[in-house]
Order: sequence, then C-alpha cells, then structure tokens
Amino acid sequence: MAHIQLDETLPGIRSLFAFRPESGAALTALAETLLRGPSSLTCAERELIATYVSSRNECVFCYSSHRAAAAHNAGGNYEWVDSCVAGESSADLSPRMRALLAVAEKVRQGGRCVMPPDIRRARDAGATDVEIHDAVLIAAAFCMYNRYVDGLAAPTPPTGSGGYDEVGRALASSGYRTAAVRG
Amino acid sequence: MAHIQLDETLPGIRSLFAFRPESGAALTALAETLLRGPSSLTCAERELIATYVSSRNECVFCYSSHRAAAAHNAGGNYEWVDSCVAGESSADLSPRMRALLAVAEKVRQGGRCVMPPDIRRARDAGATDVEIHDAVLIAAAFCMYNRYVDGLAAPTPPTGSGGYDEVGRALASSGYRTAAVRG
Repeated sequence: MAHIQLDETLPGIRSLFAFRPESGAALTALAETLLRGPSSLTCAERELIATYVSSRNECVFCYSSHRAAAAHNAGGNYEWVDSCVAGESSADLSPRMRALLAVAEKVRQGGRCVMPPDIRRARDAGATDVEIHDAVLIAAAFCMYNRYVDGLAAPTPPTGSGGYDEVGRALASSGYRTAAVRG
Repeated sequence: MAHIQLDETLPGIRSLFAFRPESGAALTALAETLLRGPSSLTCAERELIATYVSSRNECVFCYSSHRAAAAHNAGGNYEWVDSCVAGESSADLSPRMRALLAVAEKVRQGGRCVMPPDIRRARDAGATDVEIHDAVLIAAAFCMYNRYVDGLAAPTPPTGSGGYDEVGRALASSGYRTAAVRG
C-alpha cells in the first residue's frame, strides 16, 4: 500500500503525477528533455543509463519501465538491455558506453564519488564533454525518480507485467508527454 | 577543476546551466515548482529540507546556496537554519517539521528506506498527505541536484563567501527563474 492516498489503479509515477499535477508536469518535461531531447547519445543509450541506475537502486517500477523503453528504442531487443544492465563482458556495448555506465554508477553512489580517472576513461573511449554531462545528469535524475516512487511506495506491478512492455513501446514512439497524458 | 569544460567564473549549478541550457531550463522550472509553487509548507520550510539533504550529502554548493535562501525566507535568520540543520533539540521547529526532516533523511538514504512508522510519525504530528509528498519529492530532487553539481565537480566557492548570501536573498525575493537568468 502506498504511504499516501493515491489512485492505486494508476501504476508507479503516474499515480504521483495524478496526485500532484504541478510537479508532475515539471518532472515529465525534465524526462522528455533528458531522455529524448537533442543529444549525441541515442535514446536507447540514454534509456540504458536510466535502467542501469534504477536497477542498482532496486526501484522495480522505474527499472521495469525504462528497461522496456530501452528495448523498444533498440527494435524490441530486451536481451541486449538485460546483458548490458547485468554488465556482461559479452554485451554488445561500446567502450564509450561501458565507461559512461561506470560514471553513472559512481554518481549513483554519490556525486563526490566521481573521480578524475573515471572521467578520463570515458574521454579516452571517445565520450565528449556533453555526453559525460548528459550521463551524469541522467544518472542523478534517476536517483531522484527512484526515491520519489519508492519513498512514497507508489503502486508497482511486478517486473514482466504486460503493462510495462506497452508503456515502453509508447515511450519509444511518442515520448513522455504523450505517455503521461495517456496515464 | 571541473570534470568538463565549464565557465569557471559562474558558480556551481549556474556553470552547468550555461553549459547545457536545455536541461538548465527544465531543472530551473522544477526548482521553482518545488520550492516556491503552491504548497502548505512555507518557502522557508521547503528551503530547510533542501539545505538539510544537501548538508548530509556534503554538497557544499547546494548546502550554502539553500542555507542562504532558507535564511532569507525567514527574515535573514541564519541561526535558525543552522540550529535546525544541526538537529539541535532546542531548534525552533514544529514536531511536524521534525518528522518531515526525518522522512527526508530516509529518502536521502534510499527510497526503500522510508517505512510506515516514519510516515505515521509525520501524520501524527499533523502533516497532510500533500506535505508528506512534497517533503519526499524535495528530498529526492536534492539527491539529484547534489549529484549533478558534485558529479561534474562544478566550481564551488567556500561556504560563507559573500556570493551565497546575495543569491539567497535574490532567490527568496524573486525566485529561481530570475536568479538563474541573472547568472
């Protein structure tokens, strides 16, 4: 049960957006900017960072939603997402993205955990300053979204429920503003 | 030195907003909504939550800026802010705000750390569902802002520098959108 009176028919963050539409609009605009706005990181790469951080924060709702969004931004390839998030050495992932995920994990632990060698590794693998910036901010933002959803115990269907796949498909095709409205 | 090429004459998050104005606009709008939008928590109370979380995350820039904003929302009373953030038993703080700061600390540790007794204590002290929601979201948001600033090692003047007091005064009187533009 959620910690506050939410519409429990709405999953996860959507129940929070319905409870407090003012902050919902600002959080939706931020997600759209970070995950789908102009960036040399692809949408699949950015959703992968979101999934990776949410997985390590054990936020089932955000992990399951962004796993589906990452997969649908990569032609429906859940195997690719799962192997990357598990950190498998055989995962089809560039050295640049491996280094950016390592930076994201440091950000998740705490901003002050990011050290010059972490940044150097990303830069040596070809990451630009904007890509390093975007990876840090996406990781930081999911430290917020994860805490928001779980800190209020928002309703969370189990991973693998059909709803996540449908939401991931909608996010990949139409983005956050449309999917949020569909709530 | 910052981890990426920033204008080091701009302090903290302002150098990041100048580097990436797209996300800067979304982050500014979120701060304005959370800290100054409609809420039954006063601006001073909300800035206090931001200061408290930033202090515990050891983010010197956010702590110093929001400490000044909290003080200027309370008639320039830095002593009040400092005693509340230090958790002094003599601090002039309602049981409701003490309980909400305890919830904020749990959120800071991780969303799943918030337990029903934490919420019950806040509710028993008179906090409404909207106030619990807002406290959780503000705490979560500062887990993002803190990681963003420190994860990129944005330029951070030492606590007590005159610039923070001036920014706190401007935030209290004119808000985030105006202060950000003044950058």
